[in-house]
Amino acid sequence: MSTAWSDRYALRTRGIKSSAIRELLKITQRPDVISFAGGLPAPEVFPLERFREACQKVLAERGPASLQYSATEGYEPLRETIARNLRRYGILAGVENVLITSGSQQALDLIGKLLINPGDRVLVEAPTYLGALQAFNVYGADYVSVPIDDDGLRTDLLEPSLRTGPKFMYILPNFQNPAGTTLSEGRRHELVLLADRYGIPILEDDPYGQLRYEGEHLTPLVVLDRENLRRDNGYSIGNVLYLSTFSKTLAPGIRLGWIVAPPEVIAKLVQLKQGADLHTATFNQMVAYEVARDGFLDEHVKHIRQVYRERRDVMLAALDEYFPPACRWTHPQGGLFLWVTLPEGTNIQMLFDAALQQHVAFVPGDSFYAAGSPEGSRHMRLNFSNAPPEQIREGIRRLSLAVQSQLESLHPVAIPRVQERP
Amino acid sequence: MSTAWSDRYALRTRGIKSSAIRELLKITQRPDVISFAGGLPAPEVFPLERFREACQKVLAERGPASLQYSATEGYEPLRETIARNLRRYGILAGVENVLITSGSQQALDLIGKLLINPGDRVLVEAPTYLGALQAFNVYGADYVSVPIDDDGLRTDLLEPSLRTGPKFMYILPNFQNPAGTTLSEGRRHELVLLADRYGIPILEDDPYGQLRYEGEHLTPLVVLDRENLRRDNGYSIGNVLYLSTFSKTLAPGIRLGWIVAPPEVIAKLVQLKQGADLHTATFNQMVAYEVARDGFLDEHVKHIRQVYRERRDVMLAALDEYFPPACRWTHPQGGLFLWVTLPEGTNIQMLFDAALQQHVAFVPGDSFYAAGSPEGSRHMRLNFSNAPPEQIREGIRRLSLAVQSQLESLHPVAIPRVQERP
Repeated sequence: MSTAWSDRYALRTRGIKSSAIRELLKITQRPDVISFAGGLPAPEVFPLERFREACQKVLAERGPASLQYSATEGYEPLRETIARNLRRYGILAGVENVLITSGSQQALDLIGKLLINPGDRVLVEAPTYLGALQAFNVYGADYVSVPIDDDGLRTDLLEPSLRTGPKFMYILPNFQNPAGTTLSEGRRHELVLLADRYGIPILEDDPYGQLRYEGEHLTPLVVLDRENLRRDNGYSIGNVLYLSTFSKTLAPGIRLGWIVAPPEVIAKLVQLKQGADLHTATFNQMVAYEVARDGFLDEHVKHIRQVYRERRDVMLAALDEYFPPACRWTHPQGGLFLWVTLPEGTNIQMLFDAALQQHVAFVPGDSFYAAGSPEGSRHMRLNFSNAPPEQIREGIRRLSLAVQSQLESLHPVAIPRVQERP
Repeated sequence: MSTAWSDRYALRTRGIKSSAIRELLKITQRPDVISFAGGLPAPEVFPLERFREACQKVLAERGPASLQYSATEGYEPLRETIARNLRRYGILAGVENVLITSGSQQALDLIGKLLINPGDRVLVEAPTYLGALQAFNVYGADYVSVPIDDDGLRTDLLEPSLRTGPKFMYILPNFQNPAGTTLSEGRRHELVLLADRYGIPILEDDPYGQLRYEGEHLTPLVVLDRENLRRDNGYSIGNVLYLSTFSKTLAPGIRLGWIVAPPEVIAKLVQLKQGADLHTATFNQMVAYEVARDGFLDEHVKHIRQVYRERRDVMLAALDEYFPPACRWTHPQGGLFLWVTLPEGTNIQMLFDAALQQHVAFVPGDSFYAAGSPEGSRHMRLNFSNAPPEQIREGIRRLSLAVQSQLESLHPVAIPRVQERP
């Protein structure tokens, strides 16, 4: 009944690609498939009983207010909780620096609305978070991509890209999605100095920062920036906007994220958010406040770290055991993902199909490159947070069969299936 | 610390005016002020016990799924509930026609994203819903305004505006915000025919349609459009996108609205929504489904109608009793608002200040005109859903004092304070 709407009314697609990845994720949700494709938290770790108590308490004590319209900025006690948590990491935020968003995806959308005019360049990592590209595409963004390695963004390659005048840099410093890499302390300093020198702000996206399974917490860019400013006695403002979320530490189904920014930026974002959805659900904010309070969030994050560390270790061990030596993968110190690099010549779509035949799924790397770089064609993103350990091991075994057959199609001489890595 | 961000980074304001009305609403929330300024439901009518039970049930029976990421389209049982309710009003929608949004404000934002290129005209009623203007402004909309009277949009004045080629028409047919007027059945037919003739789609915004306190339900535009199409055997698609929300029938603090559209339009909106906030909170959708089911929503809406009908009647009676005869006001058959027209020459800002001195507040009419028409300068929007009846009566008495003094400043000879209207 409906093919004529587009023709008749010139619907804007605004750079949105036909969402191949959404279709892909539907396939991978078949119950017989072990999926490493999504970015879902483990459902076993959701604190159901704590949520139950919080819902009761909110409805009993603040019932009418919890169901009513509320301030666009967000629920003040929750903003205060977030600001207090940030201060522990050296981020000197007050309530006035925190805007609650409907998940951090909305934060990306609002930042896109605020900063991007059609044709503006955004500097992104290659690879980078697909959802950010989707949010920025809508506003007509162009991109300049800078590669990453095991220490994160290649800051040594940054200056030529900065000279092209990007509007801002979008950076995931901790356990990057998709690659699982972490930006080293030295490069953090370089990045912040370059941002200041070229006058190009940084959007620091940190959904996973608290989910570190080994090593020391590294200083957030927003903190280095502030220290740098203090030393310089230069600009009286920060160069860095900081994003995070409860999606990975409490639950994504309540859609709560936040932006940390100077008050004048918050004021603009509040106006844009008012037009976008008036405010984030009052009830959810009050419930999250009750769930998080009295130290529960910290204890819960410790629990999540244990669960995900085990899953990461199981995946790394299974990769070592099953995968051919011609493959490489990252060793994430935290987060939800690792990134496998396959030999040159790999046809990732054929590999995806072969994996599905083995009832296992991943996201082909192509999706994570802004400019459709051919680099993407031989990578897979693997999620290790969602499936239980025994399924992870079995899934990697199955995936290795698909990889093996793909490699055999590249090289007529069979590669030994199981081999120890150095 | 922060005045330099705008200078340094050219933040986009995207047509967003400094939000005078937000500041205004903050003033009016002082506890000593009787506020007719907001558009808030009565907190007394929120079904707290039903929400309590629904939260328990969802967490007990679908706990992990309710806190997990979910489909952008929305929770299918909730979409089915909405489609079934729509079919009772003749809107032949299936699940595939319903997209759940984060309040109907997000629906306006997504439609703006989909349809508006900078400089595109949107045809709006004068006056119209402020939040729609805010949503559309962001995408660079221009406007063409067509006046309304007691029977809604002046369809007799529509054709010259249609000839200017607006991208779509934004229409609130039932108990319009701000004016409280309802589009007559005859004009609905005319509007739909003209939309088809000029090939200009209609965005039918219907947040209050179920809150009718007198008279018969009138046919939605989306239904007339469908019937019209069937008669004509012409376009195989509908011309009307339809929006509604649970904000006025259940609670606004859970942020749930929906768009009804042909599947190909839904598909585009789903892509845009994915970039905007991934999906609406899973938990809220499941809870709303449990709250609404088994006929509860219908019974609850009957209750709300009784409560709000009484408040409307109290406000109308108080206006009759206290307001000078030089003032006129609409008689809304439903919804949350009525619209007072003051004599020419009234200074609405002075009146607002005088009202605040009497500890009573309203929204000055100016805010509701796209083009800042001078018409706006002598109107007030009064909300009758939020304050209890005794406060409504007292608030109108106080407001009449402010109006009286304003009129006396226009005419040296005093107008009798209390006078019966015919």
